[in-house]
Amino acid sequence: MIQKPRGTEDLVDKKVKEFFALELILRNIADLYNYREIRTPYFESADLFLRSVGQDTDIVSKEMYIFNDKKNRQLALRPEGTAPTVRSILENKMYINENLPLKLFYFGSMFRYERPQNGRQRQFNTFGVEMFGPKSPEADSETICLAVHVLKTIGIENFNVHLNYLVGEEQRKIYIKDLKDQLSSFELCDDCKERLEKNPLRVLDCKVDQDKFKNIKDMKEYLSDEDKKYYNDLKINLKNIDIKIIENKNLVRGLDYYTGFVFEIKDNNDLTLIGGGRYDKLVNELGNVDLPAAGWGMGVERIILSLEKQNIFLSEENYLDAYIVTLSSKSKQFANILMLMLRSAGLKVDGDFMNRSMKSAFKQAEKNNSKNIIIIGDNELKENNVVIKNQQTKDEKKVLFQDIVDYLMKGN
Amino acid sequence: MIQKPRGTEDLVDKKVKEFFALELILRNIADLYNYREIRTPYFESADLFLRSVGQDTDIVSKEMYIFNDKKNRQLALRPEGTAPTVRSILENKMYINENLPLKLFYFGSMFRYERPQNGRQRQFNTFGVEMFGPKSPEADSETICLAVHVLKTIGIENFNVHLNYLVGEEQRKIYIKDLKDQLSSFELCDDCKERLEKNPLRVLDCKVDQDKFKNIKDMKEYLSDEDKKYYNDLKINLKNIDIKIIENKNLVRGLDYYTGFVFEIKDNNDLTLIGGGRYDKLVNELGNVDLPAAGWGMGVERIILSLEKQNIFLSEENYLDAYIVTLSSKSKQFANILMLMLRSAGLKVDGDFMNRSMKSAFKQAEKNNSKNIIIIGDNELKENNVVIKNQQTKDEKKVLFQDIVDYLMKGN
Repeated sequence: MIQKPRGTEDLVDKKVKEFFALELILRNIADLYNYREIRTPYFESADLFLRSVGQDTDIVSKEMYIFNDKKNRQLALRPEGTAPTVRSILENKMYINENLPLKLFYFGSMFRYERPQNGRQRQFNTFGVEMFGPKSPEADSETICLAVHVLKTIGIENFNVHLNYLVGEEQRKIYIKDLKDQLSSFELCDDCKERLEKNPLRVLDCKVDQDKFKNIKDMKEYLSDEDKKYYNDLKINLKNIDIKIIENKNLVRGLDYYTGFVFEIKDNNDLTLIGGGRYDKLVNELGNVDLPAAGWGMGVERIILSLEKQNIFLSEENYLDAYIVTLSSKSKQFANILMLMLRSAGLKVDGDFMNRSMKSAFKQAEKNNSKNIIIIGDNELKENNVVIKNQQTKDEKKVLFQDIVDYLMKGN
Repeated sequence: MIQKPRGTEDLVDKKVKEFFALELILRNIADLYNYREIRTPYFESADLFLRSVGQDTDIVSKEMYIFNDKKNRQLALRPEGTAPTVRSILENKMYINENLPLKLFYFGSMFRYERPQNGRQRQFNTFGVEMFGPKSPEADSETICLAVHVLKTIGIENFNVHLNYLVGEEQRKIYIKDLKDQLSSFELCDDCKERLEKNPLRVLDCKVDQDKFKNIKDMKEYLSDEDKKYYNDLKINLKNIDIKIIENKNLVRGLDYYTGFVFEIKDNNDLTLIGGGRYDKLVNELGNVDLPAAGWGMGVERIILSLEKQNIFLSEENYLDAYIVTLSSKSKQFANILMLMLRSAGLKVDGDFMNRSMKSAFKQAEKNNSKNIIIIGDNELKENNVVIKNQQTKDEKKVLFQDIVDYLMKGN
């Protein structure tokens, strides 16, 4: 039998309802903050990610689903949402001054060829926000504020906001030299040895060697005076809106494009739920337009997992207003008409369709959590009525055809 | 500059809002009919589509995006939603008797490498419903009823329901022999010459040669007595719920898996908006489980296009409850706090963030369709109040910090 591809999931029943309930909450908050939706394609030129996320990152070098179309253009299933968003605002020239700040959110599937594990699938969903235009401590604190607001609204209470500020281009050279000197005295894992050559900053991201890095020099000591003031203002702003932060000097995030502040929000199992930061050069690198930007992405599967662990469910139970049981073939035909009538009035209704016995049909009504059972036989058809059984009170009542909608609408 | 792949679209602003508004309507109607959502991955084993949609179809032979993963498994971006749904209910053993009828809907992107044209993109969206279990005229008429209900609710008034009934396996051989005889006297297009060999039924689908087929023998004359009665009952049921149909003897639909009734709903430009039918053997072919089924798919882009032509818009205008204009750097910091307070109360609020002049900021408030402008300067901070200008009445009022939420909630 053909099975789903490894690392993918089928979402049905409760699970898919949780996803959609979460999506609605996220959309609602994004709307309060005046973020508008953008949808980009599920695949892009592979080149886009090479040039933005970075050729040396795991995401690009190991984890992309790459394929050629029939004209031999190299395409990739998108591994993340920021680069496509930037591509889109450039292509659609959405960056004109009067549109700024350009606040966009996206919600959708991303694809990475990783080793599947709990909370990490090869097809996974990300909710992300990006703000283009402003570069200010106020814009940054709003960005982080939105992330915290989202988690609180969803019902996730225990989380930590880790914050760092990446050293600017000029000072970065000095810092990296010092960092390399310091790291050369450590016994590093094989991955880190390679990173040390290609992109030393990313060594700090290493989960394996993390414990060794406690005494690594804080890159914030290397910040320019301007950056120091900016970072300080950001911290004041966050304090003003009651957001407690943990300063994490080794937080660099795994992508090439960050500049300025970076942050991660971790749950009490130290799982990263949200991560992001400022990336002021990406738009220029991709399209020669100077446009500062900041944003973050949230792992939807991880949020669902985190909620599950806390026994928090966002979606409502299924229910029906009425379940129709028919006792003859004539009444089956009539059921079609009755169901259309009730549904057109906004009532949730279903019937058996499987020629079940009355007993089994009643069980189906229960299984579907129906508030009422409507029974129709030939007698009822003759008398222009039906029998409606209220599943809670167990009362049965004869109701005339023309009164059924009213009767059900009154919540019987 | 890197561009989006050919045949794909970026959805922003009004367009993305229309998509989501439509999705909400579709979800709501599906719910009234007790259909529940299923989400399958965006890619599947390529094999799945070969074995279900059919190797000789254009979809599979020409239009699939196929790629190998790193273990050399051949995957395909899904070109349609029925086969993945069947794969999923088999894999997850959702077909047990007590779950029947199993009514599932899906909403999402599909991928076909076709020549892009208006209303036909390489990445496009389908809303589809599938009902597994029942095989009866009542189940079929409910399926068609749902399609008509959807179009009417969306606001599409002028459409035609084309209906046909495919001749069963035994009689099909006789019909196909007669069909071939009849077609051999026609001058057919090159595609049809090939179809005539591989799958003669699909010749009837040909747009080029359609006019020649007016006098082709009606396959419904070949139906078994049982099928004739079934089809007749279906027509009676449809009449009972006021659905007018056009019997279209040449309607076969382009996929291999249909059996029994097939239907298409076309708008007044003869564009197919919805198409589907019964497919009683597909589940068995893919998983050795006998499970009759019927369903349909709707082209979301085509619906949006059809609505546009009729000047029907489903989504609401953007608006803000308040736009905040700050007159000093201290008031900028305060704006962060105020915005969080207002948004936490469910108000849609935004601010400038771009250091615009007061005049430009006021223009932004207008552009964002804001109901109010909140003005904060150092004086206001000292006095613990703000000035709120109502954009409709042009009234300006001083409002104390603690009264701002109340003031805006009252709809000022």
